[in-house]
Amino acid sequence: MTFSLSAEELAAICGTGRLEGTTTERIRAIASLAQARPGDLTFLGNPKYRSAVATSQGSVVIVPEDHPGTPGANQAFLRVTNPSLALARVCKRLEQQLWPRPPAGIHPSAVVDPSAHIAPGVTIGPLCVVEAGAVIGERSWLEAGVYVGRNVRVGADSRLYPGVKVLAECVVGERVILQAGVVVGSDGFGYETVRGRHEKVPQVGNVHVCDDVEIGANATIDRARFNTTVIGEGAKLDNLVQIGHNVTVGKHCIICAQVGISGSTTLEDYVVLGGQAGLAGHLTVGRGSKVDGQTGVNSDLAPGSFVKGSPCLPYNLEQRLNVLRKRIPDLFKRVDALEAALHLDRAAPAADAPP
Amino acid sequence: MTFSLSAEELAAICGTGRLEGTTTERIRAIASLAQARPGDLTFLGNPKYRSAVATSQGSVVIVPEDHPGTPGANQAFLRVTNPSLALARVCKRLEQQLWPRPPAGIHPSAVVDPSAHIAPGVTIGPLCVVEAGAVIGERSWLEAGVYVGRNVRVGADSRLYPGVKVLAECVVGERVILQAGVVVGSDGFGYETVRGRHEKVPQVGNVHVCDDVEIGANATIDRARFNTTVIGEGAKLDNLVQIGHNVTVGKHCIICAQVGISGSTTLEDYVVLGGQAGLAGHLTVGRGSKVDGQTGVNSDLAPGSFVKGSPCLPYNLEQRLNVLRKRIPDLFKRVDALEAALHLDRAAPAADAPP
Amino acid sequence: MTFSLSAEELAAICGTGRLEGTTTERIRAIASLAQARPGDLTFLGNPKYRSAVATSQGSVVIVPEDHPGTPGANQAFLRVTNPSLALARVCKRLEQQLWPRPPAGIHPSAVVDPSAHIAPGVTIGPLCVVEAGAVIGERSWLEAGVYVGRNVRVGADSRLYPGVKVLAECVVGERVILQAGVVVGSDGFGYETVRGRHEKVPQVGNVHVCDDVEIGANATIDRARFNTTVIGEGAKLDNLVQIGHNVTVGKHCIICAQVGISGSTTLEDYVVLGGQAGLAGHLTVGRGSKVDGQTGVNSDLAPGSFVKGSPCLPYNLEQRLNVLRKRIPDLFKRVDALEAALHLDRAAPAADAPP
Repeated sequence: MTFSLSAEELAAICGTGRLEGTTTERIRAIASLAQARPGDLTFLGNPKYRSAVATSQGSVVIVPEDHPGTPGANQAFLRVTNPSLALARVCKRLEQQLWPRPPAGIHPSAVVDPSAHIAPGVTIGPLCVVEAGAVIGERSWLEAGVYVGRNVRVGADSRLYPGVKVLAECVVGERVILQAGVVVGSDGFGYETVRGRHEKVPQVGNVHVCDDVEIGANATIDRARFNTTVIGEGAKLDNLVQIGHNVTVGKHCIICAQVGISGSTTLEDYVVLGGQAGLAGHLTVGRGSKVDGQTGVNSDLAPGSFVKGSPCLPYNLEQRLNVLRKRIPDLFKRVDALEAALHLDRAAPAADAPP
Repeated sequence: MTFSLSAEELAAICGTGRLEGTTTERIRAIASLAQARPGDLTFLGNPKYRSAVATSQGSVVIVPEDHPGTPGANQAFLRVTNPSLALARVCKRLEQQLWPRPPAGIHPSAVVDPSAHIAPGVTIGPLCVVEAGAVIGERSWLEAGVYVGRNVRVGADSRLYPGVKVLAECVVGERVILQAGVVVGSDGFGYETVRGRHEKVPQVGNVHVCDDVEIGANATIDRARFNTTVIGEGAKLDNLVQIGHNVTVGKHCIICAQVGISGSTTLEDYVVLGGQAGLAGHLTVGRGSKVDGQTGVNSDLAPGSFVKGSPCLPYNLEQRLNVLRKRIPDLFKRVDALEAALHLDRAAPAADAPP
Repeated sequence: MTFSLSAEELAAICGTGRLEGTTTERIRAIASLAQARPGDLTFLGNPKYRSAVATSQGSVVIVPEDHPGTPGANQAFLRVTNPSLALARVCKRLEQQLWPRPPAGIHPSAVVDPSAHIAPGVTIGPLCVVEAGAVIGERSWLEAGVYVGRNVRVGADSRLYPGVKVLAECVVGERVILQAGVVVGSDGFGYETVRGRHEKVPQVGNVHVCDDVEIGANATIDRARFNTTVIGEGAKLDNLVQIGHNVTVGKHCIICAQVGISGSTTLEDYVVLGGQAGLAGHLTVGRGSKVDGQTGVNSDLAPGSFVKGSPCLPYNLEQRLNVLRKRIPDLFKRVDALEAALHLDRAAPAADAPP
């Protein structure tokens, strides 16, 4: 990263906030509170690190408005409502400078079917393949080695990173980001077993990735058996997520890495799924529900649920059971003592025998 | 999807079944019971949705032979033994119409070593690479950007979706389907630690993917340390599955998404593994065993086992323990009450202390 | 595999060890103890298979120095300190013979930016893309279809398998192995929610994959929000592993398949993570800690910890609780009996009601 900004210029990029203190340093890098040195911008994004502000060597520190400390010598605080958001805006500015998008045009090594419609301002990188009937919307960017299948439609201002594959008939909206290696439109997993052999159920539907979605590296989204697998507007999916056929992901859902959702399950809007959670098929997860990491969901969840465990229970109950669980060895001893006090013969089991 | 079929033509495609009622509509799409409108084919595949038949607007409804209802106005029922299988046959017909395979031939942008043997009727898409000594069987289809390594053999009538990689010396059978991004023949994970450094154990075996196997998007199959990792005939693996080196997957196994199988484990035939299950190495899972989703298997399973949990227990026991678990807070209270009744001093612990 | 070696030549390749017995067979293949036939090399690597040595038909058997048996007719034992390591050395020799690296040079179908610096002895395979400003170190090998982004640096003697993607600004060390489909430098998963929409936090840092690292097929390593995600020297990551942004993996860590590590977590050196384990963000896992398969870690771990379960507990406690768990149905019966003996009214619940 090569840039050089004054504290005042940084404040202007953030758009809001109040500078306190001054620094003669120009900012040329971003670092964490502990690692920042003079010339670095740093920030307090997680209250866990609050005590690190006082000793940080960073020249500009973005802090919450009510942070109790004051800047050190040759140091400025930029007080804002949301330090993480303020930093995001700085990074967005830097990103444009660091990684300018290439000029529009089709790289000569790309293989683009003559019947594909490529809108003005589109960039198609080296060794891409765009099949017959595909439509690529204005200013969208296919990086190197992207595959776009027959009759696929990609909206405007989307970015497909290297090695993304969008298979036949699928639809990708506007301002969508597909990270490297994403597969959209693989066949759903469906078979009918006839005389001991699994006969493939053809998957003739498609996938609709709506506007403002982002999907993480090497994630896989299966096409529907018929009709459509939907990833709703503004939803964000992390790396290596698996979405089965006929799933509907609601608007603005957050799905962390390595989650798996089985076929025909519906997430309503604003659902959050922690990493490695697994959902059975044909379920409905109500609006705004939260599912903790590694949780297993095998029944419908009412709106606003918060669940944990495999199989899942309400979060607070699961946490309580996890606390009590550690006291179970003691519980066995207490029952032993009770039986001894009553001179009860224990009916059955030897120490470690399963029942 | 663009097609147009009468109810009688649909019945003919299914091959079996009995039409009841009549419709003047021609069928041009497939939809679920709840979403179907006039002109749609729909079906009752899952008894869970039985009550939706009576109100479905679909013009043709495929139902089980003994379904108790009768068709509505301008609606036909097609009564069959297995509605899902009947629909699969309709979809197969549509699939051929929707996505005809391209003509045979090698795209000029593909890089095919002169020593590779390409059988008649093979299609090799744009930007594929076929290395020296590889053999591609009749009518097989390598879609765009497929990589086939040195001395790989691919049987007849197989289909490798975009971005599949089959690495050196591996064998792929007939009628195999590899979804986009599959890796066959990555190195197994093996090291010997010598003076604090992990020295790589070369993996000089291969993978044999037998006839009629399907492997899901971005799944990974490691080559054997020496000899062969085997995916048995007719087995079906879902997306993002990981198969370690020297594993043997038996015939007609079903492995759901994101399952991981550690090195040298053997699945006998007809094993079913639920999503996100994990199997330790050097195990044998007996014929026809079922492993529930998210289950952890760390010991051999007898044929016909049905297990759940991590570490796994017999399914019914695990379910019973999950029910009792919710009553554990009450059990603690009951033991408190017993101790109080007997005026027993509790031996040890403060409330939340772990033992 | 085609090779032919005498028992004495094999012993020489291993470098150490003592031959006992003799065989007239030349060794042309490697097989497991049970499957070995005359002409095969086999070995006792796992004590679990010790009894199989006596009946093995292999012509040369690598065994531990103190193995109690003696070779059969026309069979030799090669007694060594570490049979697995000895076999690894044989395999390494075979590997060089089986899969010689191709000559240095850039395939004419590769797209290499003129500003990239390609050191002497580098091999760049067909259909690779190397972007502006990238540096590829001496003798490194990019197999077919590899993508190397802007300003990426790859050290000497590294091997990138087909379809690997190393995105802009990332650094890959010397002797690194990236298996097929690996993504290095995908964006970290970070958003700020503003009025119900998730606004992307640009990820302007990079990834540093240090010397002697190996990363498994289709694994994904996210770039840092700013600064650097680090995979430490000599660490080995298996297939489909997910590493979040700003993670630090210490030196010589072992991370098994399908593990997920959330953002900003640090593994100190020599940590071992079992398959499908999941780690929350912003944690520190102390040097030499071991985490069992499918374990969930949501708090810091002291050096040398050994944990299991989700959420995790010390390994021995977790194992004890898993044993006691099977006796819980009996514990309920015992409490029933105690209450009956005392004629206590049970306060609350019907049989299966959750509390």
